[in-house]
Amino acid sequence: MRLSDIAALVGGRLLGDADPELTGAASLAEAGPGDLSFVADARRAAEGAASAAGALLVPPGLDPGRPAIVVDRPYEAFAQFLARLAPDPDRLYPPGVHPTDVVDATAVVAAAAIGPYCVVGAGAVVGAGTRLGPHVVVGSDANVGRDCVLHAHVVVREGCRLGDRVIVHAGTVVGADGFGYLPGPHGQVKIPQVGIVEIGDDVELGALVTIDRATTGRTVIGAGSKLDNQVHVAHNVRIGRCCAISAQTGIAGSSVIGDGVVTGGQVGIADHLVIGDGVRIGAQAGVIKDVPAGATLFGYPALDFHESFRITAALRRLPAALGRLRALEGRAATDAPKRGK
Amino acid sequence: MRLSDIAALVGGRLLGDADPELTGAASLAEAGPGDLSFVADARRAAEGAASAAGALLVPPGLDPGRPAIVVDRPYEAFAQFLARLAPDPDRLYPPGVHPTDVVDATAVVAAAAIGPYCVVGAGAVVGAGTRLGPHVVVGSDANVGRDCVLHAHVVVREGCRLGDRVIVHAGTVVGADGFGYLPGPHGQVKIPQVGIVEIGDDVELGALVTIDRATTGRTVIGAGSKLDNQVHVAHNVRIGRCCAISAQTGIAGSSVIGDGVVTGGQVGIADHLVIGDGVRIGAQAGVIKDVPAGATLFGYPALDFHESFRITAALRRLPAALGRLRALEGRAATDAPKRGK
Amino acid sequence: MRLSDIAALVGGRLLGDADPELTGAASLAEAGPGDLSFVADARRAAEGAASAAGALLVPPGLDPGRPAIVVDRPYEAFAQFLARLAPDPDRLYPPGVHPTDVVDATAVVAAAAIGPYCVVGAGAVVGAGTRLGPHVVVGSDANVGRDCVLHAHVVVREGCRLGDRVIVHAGTVVGADGFGYLPGPHGQVKIPQVGIVEIGDDVELGALVTIDRATTGRTVIGAGSKLDNQVHVAHNVRIGRCCAISAQTGIAGSSVIGDGVVTGGQVGIADHLVIGDGVRIGAQAGVIKDVPAGATLFGYPALDFHESFRITAALRRLPAALGRLRALEGRAATDAPKRGK
Repeated sequence: MRLSDIAALVGGRLLGDADPELTGAASLAEAGPGDLSFVADARRAAEGAASAAGALLVPPGLDPGRPAIVVDRPYEAFAQFLARLAPDPDRLYPPGVHPTDVVDATAVVAAAAIGPYCVVGAGAVVGAGTRLGPHVVVGSDANVGRDCVLHAHVVVREGCRLGDRVIVHAGTVVGADGFGYLPGPHGQVKIPQVGIVEIGDDVELGALVTIDRATTGRTVIGAGSKLDNQVHVAHNVRIGRCCAISAQTGIAGSSVIGDGVVTGGQVGIADHLVIGDGVRIGAQAGVIKDVPAGATLFGYPALDFHESFRITAALRRLPAALGRLRALEGRAATDAPKRGK
Repeated sequence: MRLSDIAALVGGRLLGDADPELTGAASLAEAGPGDLSFVADARRAAEGAASAAGALLVPPGLDPGRPAIVVDRPYEAFAQFLARLAPDPDRLYPPGVHPTDVVDATAVVAAAAIGPYCVVGAGAVVGAGTRLGPHVVVGSDANVGRDCVLHAHVVVREGCRLGDRVIVHAGTVVGADGFGYLPGPHGQVKIPQVGIVEIGDDVELGALVTIDRATTGRTVIGAGSKLDNQVHVAHNVRIGRCCAISAQTGIAGSSVIGDGVVTGGQVGIADHLVIGDGVRIGAQAGVIKDVPAGATLFGYPALDFHESFRITAALRRLPAALGRLRALEGRAATDAPKRGK
Repeated sequence: MRLSDIAALVGGRLLGDADPELTGAASLAEAGPGDLSFVADARRAAEGAASAAGALLVPPGLDPGRPAIVVDRPYEAFAQFLARLAPDPDRLYPPGVHPTDVVDATAVVAAAAIGPYCVVGAGAVVGAGTRLGPHVVVGSDANVGRDCVLHAHVVVREGCRLGDRVIVHAGTVVGADGFGYLPGPHGQVKIPQVGIVEIGDDVELGALVTIDRATTGRTVIGAGSKLDNQVHVAHNVRIGRCCAISAQTGIAGSSVIGDGVVTGGQVGIADHLVIGDGVRIGAQAGVIKDVPAGATLFGYPALDFHESFRITAALRRLPAALGRLRALEGRAATDAPKRGK
């Protein structure tokens, strides 16, 4: 793609006269003469100067020393260029319904592309523009919206509902039974999980994610939320809009997560909690109490980050502090006779 | 379903003359006029009164203010009603062997239903009444018992054995190789994992669970145990009967877990440990030593919960305590000249 | 197999004249008269004497009291015997391309065995000697090397590259999109992930592992490395050669892991870190800073193991220490009037 075309694509201004052809995109450190890269902001100017990239996206006021495009937000413009490098969806997901697909006669399928060996159950609905990879299973009476992408081996169990423009990565399971049992005379008795999962528009679920169906009612993932690989969402959880949940995090049953909540990886949130809007939770934290909106937490048990950092720093001084305590006790014991005790 | 029919189903007593028709089940907070809900015990009486449910299951002595059924254990009765709302298994798993199934000529399959695209290997056995979802793989010489349900994409590798009434949720892998290597001159050398997995009757495995085959011998899951999504059980682990292991917990190789052990989510149990009967382990705990029967543990390293809670409370006071220590040392230093030191 | 044949196989010396036939392998505790077991070293001599094994592999200088083979490294020899007990690969993975395979006309497939219902995309390459289990998906332009084994349901997405003799266990997903977004006016905007995954020779990936494709460039797993079940490797991570990463560990984006790094289970490594060669990280640790080569870390935040153990031991004394501190303060307050303050 010519640099001038890229400038038009991203709404940027070409710097200088050179208009090279670019064939790839890379980080500043890895880019070569055929690649476009980007300098996110002025702090990266030195990395930009050192890069071997054939052209750069730069913020205003930065001299790139090579062909460049000036834009206000270079990382955003870079992402727009990346979209041009992504494989043609028709190559990944050839249009049409593959002859091997097993689609129930009562299913209503308007999808753009269904890969080999998909199974669509009775009464299911798959919306227009949606692409299903190989081996996807859409259960009875499930409903997948428009312009979704379900990668290979995804399972959407009976009755579950996905909105529009939902992306689900390979192997993810939507609608498995929640983990619910009652004690019985001969061991635990299974509580039927007759609720569903409801996933909002523009949600993206990573690979090997589990979102369990509700006991009754719905497990909900709000519009625009993004869940990373191997996240687990238990039955009856409600996640708000525009959250970002990092890999391997687990949210236990019936907890309610607000809008715009962000977590690091491997976070654990206990059951029946309320987490307010805009909360940020550090990686590996263990949240065991309700969290007010806007809080930032770290640690296990998760605490406000100021307190958590103070404790972490204090912990490193603890072994020596015990020795100092013992020394003080020794001095006090020595002094005691003098005080006539 | 008429309330009187539900009363007969659960062995309860109809309260009053009203006999409405109910079409659904819901929590007290979410229920509407067509729903049955339940008041678990007297502490929930206020929530029951506030509910919009058309009818309630109530314990003796509680006035529901609407059509109701009196039972000793309302949650249990509710679970029985939920079973009536679950989809017809024949709709989810149509009876018969699908024409696309690849079943080896030497396999013995008595299953009630095998979904599309299942693969059953040489010498495998699948018992009567069992239902397999789409894409299930039962390996050579594997043995699946009677009245099991294996959801879509489940893999049971060669030689592994499942008892009766085992439920395995989507995407779970039974019998992958244990993680075993020996150092060699050119890197790590794989130790062949020639043992199997043996799963007892009435076990339920969540979605995307991994149970590894043994190096030699068996990895065992005892009858009646329930494992939540994304649990990992390493090679040669033995889990006792009627355990409940919550999501994303990992149990390392050769550990032996007793009967009736309960863990929270994201627990880690180290290798070659012995965990006694009835042990309870809190979420995110890290167990690195043997645990006597009946103990309750929290934290990392996991400690008896009394001690763990004392430490957690003390931790929050630690930063201030270091300041207090420093103050005492300052006073002792000031006093020192007076004492002729 | 006759004991004399096993001796020839492992390059050991038969002890005594007996040459029994052995049919299985087991641990010392579980072995019976038809089994071969092994005594790893002299410390296990008592367990060896107590074993019911029909024959033993023993180190020099140890009297087994039964038919035996003397070898320098008994565990290694045992592993060689286990390889003889493993099922015939042709029974697990019948040679040939199954008639149900959907292989694009432009794919180049030299594999020894492709199981039922595999899907191989446009321009993909699968090397000679490789075996694919049922339902494996090899995406467009992906490249799988020679003598690999990809178990059931494995997904290798477009463009990704596997070296030779790579083993991938069931359900693993190679090449899902990295977790990358930019803030936008209407929520988070997806950054296309146009890089690939590159897996070196002799790598083994456990079951239900996720290795994400890079934003640009490559996510790399170095030759000889072994990753256990449910490990997560984020986009643009580089793992060196001959590492061993235990189950459920997560490595966040762009971190660089050296050669020969070993982690326990459930470890978390933050993003953009550099972990040196030969680092060892204990289970459940949380690594949030760069780690120099050769270090051994435990805990959260992960610290050098000496310091981590001192802190863990000190933590158990903390509640009592707060009481001792309070006592000292009480004595100092009592003394204060006497000192004229």
